[in-house]
Amino acid sequence: MILTVTLNPALDLTYEVEQLRPYATHRVSAVHERPGGKGLNVAGVLHALGEPVLATGLLGGPTGARVQALVDAAGLPSSFAPIAGETRRTVTVADRTDATGLWEPGPVVSAAEWSAFVARFRALLDGAAAVALSGSLPAGLAPDAYAVLIEIARSLGVPSVLDTSGEALRLGLLAGPTLAKPNEAELAALVGSSGSSEPGIRSLLAPGSAAVVVSRGPRGLHAVTADGSWRAAPPSALRGNPTGAGDACVAALARGLRDDTPWPPLLADAVALSAAAVAAPVAGSIDIERYSQFKEAIDAGTDG
Amino acid sequence: MILTVTLNPALDLTYEVEQLRPYATHRVSAVHERPGGKGLNVAGVLHALGEPVLATGLLGGPTGARVQALVDAAGLPSSFAPIAGETRRTVTVADRTDATGLWEPGPVVSAAEWSAFVARFRALLDGAAAVALSGSLPAGLAPDAYAVLIEIARSLGVPSVLDTSGEALRLGLLAGPTLAKPNEAELAALVGSSGSSEPGIRSLLAPGSAAVVVSRGPRGLHAVTADGSWRAAPPSALRGNPTGAGDACVAALARGLRDDTPWPPLLADAVALSAAAVAAPVAGSIDIERYSQFKEAIDAGTDG
Repeated sequence: MILTVTLNPALDLTYEVEQLRPYATHRVSAVHERPGGKGLNVAGVLHALGEPVLATGLLGGPTGARVQALVDAAGLPSSFAPIAGETRRTVTVADRTDATGLWEPGPVVSAAEWSAFVARFRALLDGAAAVALSGSLPAGLAPDAYAVLIEIARSLGVPSVLDTSGEALRLGLLAGPTLAKPNEAELAALVGSSGSSEPGIRSLLAPGSAAVVVSRGPRGLHAVTADGSWRAAPPSALRGNPTGAGDACVAALARGLRDDTPWPPLLADAVALSAAAVAAPVAGSIDIERYSQFKEAIDAGTDG
Repeated sequence: MILTVTLNPALDLTYEVEQLRPYATHRVSAVHERPGGKGLNVAGVLHALGEPVLATGLLGGPTGARVQALVDAAGLPSSFAPIAGETRRTVTVADRTDATGLWEPGPVVSAAEWSAFVARFRALLDGAAAVALSGSLPAGLAPDAYAVLIEIARSLGVPSVLDTSGEALRLGLLAGPTLAKPNEAELAALVGSSGSSEPGIRSLLAPGSAAVVVSRGPRGLHAVTADGSWRAAPPSALRGNPTGAGDACVAALARGLRDDTPWPPLLADAVALSAAAVAAPVAGSIDIERYSQFKEAIDAGTDG
């Protein structure tokens, strides 16, 4: 199975209102509730594809129990470590124009809880063909948390995909994940806009790393390895919800690592799956029919 | 004890943000969580005063369980009836300027659940010296729900205070609650602005009703009975949080009914307790020290 790690999951609430007006009171016409966090989105996409997957991470408090119940109701296998702090909620207020986000700060994780998670992670890797590490770190964890997990995965021979930002990304890259998937903004924050050239991206490859895959929104994916690069792009601009497209891309990359898929078909698949996520209404889900259509239409080419 | 009824309670969440900007994403700096709903505020004020109180109403789903846990943690005695639907949340986004409200629609209550609640209500009245009926009705309940409860209370000799709005208020008034406490806007919605004269208010008294008490914000209270009227006002304009002032007023009125307090001291007490609620930071709590100060300062007079 593919193991997905979500250290800072959330209960994602979406409130539909007619129009958000600051300092007014709004009757919410509909409430949608789903398990949130990038790693859970990756797991959801893999599960929708029928791939064996196991979601792990940290959950705590009544909101954590709610996330667990929603994960269970979706039939998604999971093995989360309990924490004393309370899992965060996110509230997205969707009106006719656009969406407004309110993100709770999330729990503080203790050193003992982190140690217990690391032991669980090590045990779960026993059955894992690949591992995806996604999203932000909760308070209390050192910024090298992903680096620690990447080193354990490598020591056990399990390939890893890292999708995070900032210091967690910088330190994670130094530990040599098999793949890292920054988007352009995350890459620029790390290396500056001048560093987003191919040699700049290549300089991020640590010993043990196979590639950095940069997601560039509607312009598709750019994979840079030690001795080459590949690009793939969707056939046309897509309308839909771009939230979750990066997580679908990570799902495709993790599956590709498991199957040793060569770059051209792997990138084509990752672009098609991302596009199928844009076509689906909520993050963590995909439009399976459009996925097949996109797969046929997208051709990956090499460059560089 | 005094029984308080909350048919549509809520989990009240307050999110502190720097400034609410539509279509941006906000990091919430602090989250506050409390049991909400007007009847629970009334119960909270009575409990803070050391008065024996019992909170009843309808709770369901994980959010209902969370409200129950918060009620228990506050040491507030309660006997809520379970429902299958999920208790609503309210989210208040507080920034440096003011507050923005987002109210979930709340559960739908079935006929069987309502019957079970009515049976519970009847049983709980056995030990009640007064009952306060507060707030909106959840979907699925007929607008005469409060009228049904008022008739049962009267048949058992328990005086009642009704604090609601719209059709639930209109039908409730016809059933003859001992007291009703509309605010000026609720009264105007019922009888038109011309009907808010003293004879207009008096016309709302049904057989069995002792008085209608109109709350007029900073201008205080106006009690109208079959043969007289009384007014009381705070000593000066108050700064603070007016949410919950009406619930503190209902708490004072319910206690006054229990103790057969004459109108002048009862109205003075209700104004002082409302002012003490304005002085406290959150609804359902009071500033006990300022309550004593206000009580000394406020003098009720008769007119009409």
